[in-house]
Amino acid sequence: MFLTLFDFAGTFVFALSGATAGVRRRLDLFGVLVLSFAAAAAGGILRDVLIGALPPVAIRDWAYPVIAGVAALIVFFRYPLIERLKHPVQLFDAAGLALFAVLGTQKALMFGMNPLAAAMLGVLSGIGGGMVRDIMLAGIPTVLRAEVYAVAALAGAAIVVAGELLAVPPHISMIAGGLLCFVLRVLAIRHNWQIAIAAPPSETDDGPRA
Amino acid sequence: MFLTLFDFAGTFVFALSGATAGVRRRLDLFGVLVLSFAAAAAGGILRDVLIGALPPVAIRDWAYPVIAGVAALIVFFRYPLIERLKHPVQLFDAAGLALFAVLGTQKALMFGMNPLAAAMLGVLSGIGGGMVRDIMLAGIPTVLRAEVYAVAALAGAAIVVAGELLAVPPHISMIAGGLLCFVLRVLAIRHNWQIAIAAPPSETDDGPRA
Amino acid sequence: MFLTLFDFAGTFVFALSGATAGVRRRLDLFGVLVLSFAAAAAGGILRDVLIGALPPVAIRDWAYPVIAGVAALIVFFRYPLIERLKHPVQLFDAAGLALFAVLGTQKALMFGMNPLAAAMLGVLSGIGGGMVRDIMLAGIPTVLRAEVYAVAALAGAAIVVAGELLAVPPHISMIAGGLLCFVLRVLAIRHNWQIAIAAPPSETDDGPRA
Repeated sequence: MFLTLFDFAGTFVFALSGATAGVRRRLDLFGVLVLSFAAAAAGGILRDVLIGALPPVAIRDWAYPVIAGVAALIVFFRYPLIERLKHPVQLFDAAGLALFAVLGTQKALMFGMNPLAAAMLGVLSGIGGGMVRDIMLAGIPTVLRAEVYAVAALAGAAIVVAGELLAVPPHISMIAGGLLCFVLRVLAIRHNWQIAIAAPPSETDDGPRA
Repeated sequence: MFLTLFDFAGTFVFALSGATAGVRRRLDLFGVLVLSFAAAAAGGILRDVLIGALPPVAIRDWAYPVIAGVAALIVFFRYPLIERLKHPVQLFDAAGLALFAVLGTQKALMFGMNPLAAAMLGVLSGIGGGMVRDIMLAGIPTVLRAEVYAVAALAGAAIVVAGELLAVPPHISMIAGGLLCFVLRVLAIRHNWQIAIAAPPSETDDGPRA
Repeated sequence: MFLTLFDFAGTFVFALSGATAGVRRRLDLFGVLVLSFAAAAAGGILRDVLIGALPPVAIRDWAYPVIAGVAALIVFFRYPLIERLKHPVQLFDAAGLALFAVLGTQKALMFGMNPLAAAMLGVLSGIGGGMVRDIMLAGIPTVLRAEVYAVAALAGAAIVVAGELLAVPPHISMIAGGLLCFVLRVLAIRHNWQIAIAAPPSETDDGPRA
């Protein structure tokens, strides 16, 4: 019950992020609705497809598209409001990331995935929506670029996996993992943490394979 | 039988659209074949993956790749011909959209999706091919931008869903929904209808989440 | 056993290609890891999703992400080394393509796909990773553009399908198909073979459908 509320809150803030990106790129109302749902649900949908949990919960349960639709309408018709809310939205986004990463990992474990796969699928649950949003807008996913975003999700997922291996009750490890992810992400925003980028290569063109 | 013929016609015109986009971007013959099949089949494939109808019918039935392949070869070797046919192709495309949207919705209902999910999957069946085509060409899907395209698909899908809820025989609501979608799309082309775009935001950069 | 070794080698070189592309676009370490795994595993994952073999083997078996991760770390921390190895990497890549195409076709046949679908899925197994890698980097997949890459995969897949239809023992046709694909690809690199591009169209803009 509590988890479901958080899940809906995460869906809502991820949908806000998708709708905001769509309005900035001057999509029409339909495009904003699509991007909103994609940002909110694509991570979980990809996870569910990969573990074979079909149809994905975000398709099966009408609450997800409705929540995403409400977020899209708010952003579309009240864009200045959202601009002003940037700071709280970042906090919600961090909370959504934490929750999706932890819930996704746990679901993958329940479907019999090995620990490494479960952690990867947890991260995918958390960051997949943002990746699909950016690819739809013909950009390189921001999550792949110099930001402690996925790493926070990975830390949370790792805690859940470790808890499973050590037979810790799931709700304990999920709370611990979620908190770790959330705190890491908030600290990263506050202190502008970056993770390593490789030394500049000799050439910068993008040739074919290897 | 009649439906199958329309399905093949829709596949053919969507394949033409993919192949045309590929030739314009100077892809090689193989690339044109891939884009042709993607534009024709990706909507249905995504729908089938999401409802768990695996393998997707467009993979299982050899008619779809064969039809898409023929369309690709025609466009590749007779490009000027296709250019001249622009007007009829737009009509066929509207017919394909109508049919895919309506058939996709009905199939999703038969697989037990709720009404909202069925309508979304119907729209995805209709517009998914064009979206994948555009993403493969590194562009923002045109369907997300200021055109009454997806909305026509949604109107058709909504009729099918409403028919299901009111226990109207499926073939009646499918014909009604398909006609509505087709007429809306043709009127939108003729009168250059656009749907709303949000007021220009204060900044135009695409920052990270939210 | 022998096949598994080749499969791992193919995974490794495809992962190298993804990681190299990521470093060139200045992704952070996490982004390089993601791109590395996507390039190595996306082809097989897409194939497994489409034939309904869920969860995909690249998710289920921890060896694939581990191999891709090792490749990513090598590229990230030893980029100049990889630059120097370009020639051997191209050979490995050709070997990986051959193996993935042939194995993918055979797996699709075993899952009851028709010959055309099996060949398409074999090609997808071989080229899907590179396509997803390029789409994630917001580019048009190089494999769709003027290079005898997918065609080599198709030739290999066709041999496997023909062998199935003629009741040749699978390992014979797989070896023959794999060799054909490998030799074609290496010759194409050496002699800079290109396949046909359609005559330049009258206009070069990318309009909407058709």
